Amino acid sequence: MLDATNVPSGFAPLTDAGAFVEHVGPLYERDGVIGARVEARHLNVAGTAMGGFLATLVDVAFGRAIRAEAEGESAVATVSLTTDYLRPGPEGAWLEVHVEVERLTGRLAFGDCSVHADGDEIVRARAVFAVRSSS
Amino acid sequence: MLDATNVPSGFAPLTDAGAFVEHVGPLYERDGVIGARVEARHLNVAGTAMGGFLATLVDVAFGRAIRAEAEGESAVATVSLTTDYLRPGPEGAWLEVHVEVERLTGRLAFGDCSVHADGDEIVRARAVFAVRSSS
Amino acid sequence: MLDATNVPSGFAPLTDAGAFVEHVGPLYERDGVIGARVEARHLNVAGTAMGGFLATLVDVAFGRAIRAEAEGESAVATVSLTTDYLRPGPEGAWLEVHVEVERLTGRLAFGDCSVHADGDEIVRARAVFAVRSSS
Amino acid sequence: MLDATNVPSGFAPLTDAGAFVEHVGPLYERDGVIGARVEARHLNVAGTAMGGFLATLVDVAFGRAIRAEAEGESAVATVSLTTDYLRPGPEGAWLEVHVEVERLTGRLAFGDCSVHADGDEIVRARAVFAVRSSS
Repeated sequence: MLDATNVPSGFAPLTDAGAFVEHVGPLYERDGVIGARVEARHLNVAGTAMGGFLATLVDVAFGRAIRAEAEGESAVATVSLTTDYLRPGPEGAWLEVHVEVERLTGRLAFGDCSVHADGDEIVRARAVFAVRSSS
Repeated sequence: MLDATNVPSGFAPLTDAGAFVEHVGPLYERDGVIGARVEARHLNVAGTAMGGFLATLVDVAFGRAIRAEAEGESAVATVSLTTDYLRPGPEGAWLEVHVEVERLTGRLAFGDCSVHADGDEIVRARAVFAVRSSS
Repeated sequence: MLDATNVPSGFAPLTDAGAFVEHVGPLYERDGVIGARVEARHLNVAGTAMGGFLATLVDVAFGRAIRAEAEGESAVATVSLTTDYLRPGPEGAWLEVHVEVERLTGRLAFGDCSVHADGDEIVRARAVFAVRSSS
Repeated sequence: MLDATNVPSGFAPLTDAGAFVEHVGPLYERDGVIGARVEARHLNVAGTAMGGFLATLVDVAFGRAIRAEAEGESAVATVSLTTDYLRPGPEGAWLEVHVEVERLTGRLAFGDCSVHADGDEIVRARAVFAVRSSS
């Protein structure tokens, strides 16, 4: 079920994810899953979702998932992002980005990320983040 | 020497790099080097250049460098991008993105990419691209 | 249940995986899962499983899983391997290596790999392989 | 100029790199460059240097280069290794492994690695290592 702006029910706009996310968004979130619609301004010269746009979704989703697990930690920062492009992301598709945080220490976090477009997996990614305690 | 819009001399706007690059840009190019100024809308919640913005620069620079070497080839597509974040990219910094294509076959291309912000290396990346002949 | 050589039941020695695997092995296989015991000769200077040994397990497991899916294809070759080290692998631990092939085309394969040591995930990896049809 | 065991002059055997390196070696070192001869026991089923063997060289070379720069630091550990296979490594070839450490903080190190076989670049890699002060 989509609302007037074509967003599946339950997804709410991300409002605190920084200026770049706002600029390329709106992005949405539901139960820790990031969602987005592929719009004309997200495309590359081949007419599909640009790699950098998809990497942005991946980076946002990792950052939020790791911050959510690192309760009481003040800061997380991307160290290394490996993004594999399995299939093109068509214009108009609804994207959902899932992250699994596999390991979180006081210094580092590791995770796996999967992006689906209307149900097909189009991107799979890994990340290492640095974590710094706020205390 | 900067022009009125703070772009080092010799850099010209990229005009044919697709809708997403136009949306996050303007980006610039000089002798195969991609350039960009870190603006307020490129920032993350920590106030530095967002990882996805930097990955976008990396992806664009790889795509253009590989296409330039693959003369007569019609299409290149990102297969895998590994982006390492060495230092934060400050607001206002001038970014330059250099790519070295190490290997280009009829099917695949490999490369190394370095992003400097006002002279400091802030990102280093690797990519594998798929290459398809147009003939 | 372990046999005389401490191998869980059902695992049989890999015999056709090439000279290097034989040299660092024996490795074992059961239903597509690669197994190995961390021996003294697999250790690094810190006394845990050496990164290159674990990368060898990952590379073998990916190669076999992709070849198994690419029926009728004659050759697969590693293009890019990203290996993340989540925890040290202790001497004496039994390792199991699982691969999921996410996407297989006539030219490329993508996959995710997980290595557990006595039940704990110690390595997570991604790979891109090249696939060439034999016909 | 090769000595009796076919090692270019100036390269001396690595003797303190741990049991796994000893098992797959001998490896050699000259001025921070790791060297090795591709022997029959290093091969995969295709008859070229096995991916895991090459990843072992890369991991060793990164570890030694980072430890050399992190003077006074007691421990370095591989966090993430991305290894790209540009060309096959032929049996009998002499391999040289060069590492550039791009960034070293009190917690992390980043580097780029290149492996040449008789002069041709066959592997290019990136690594993130964790660094822990001994003091």
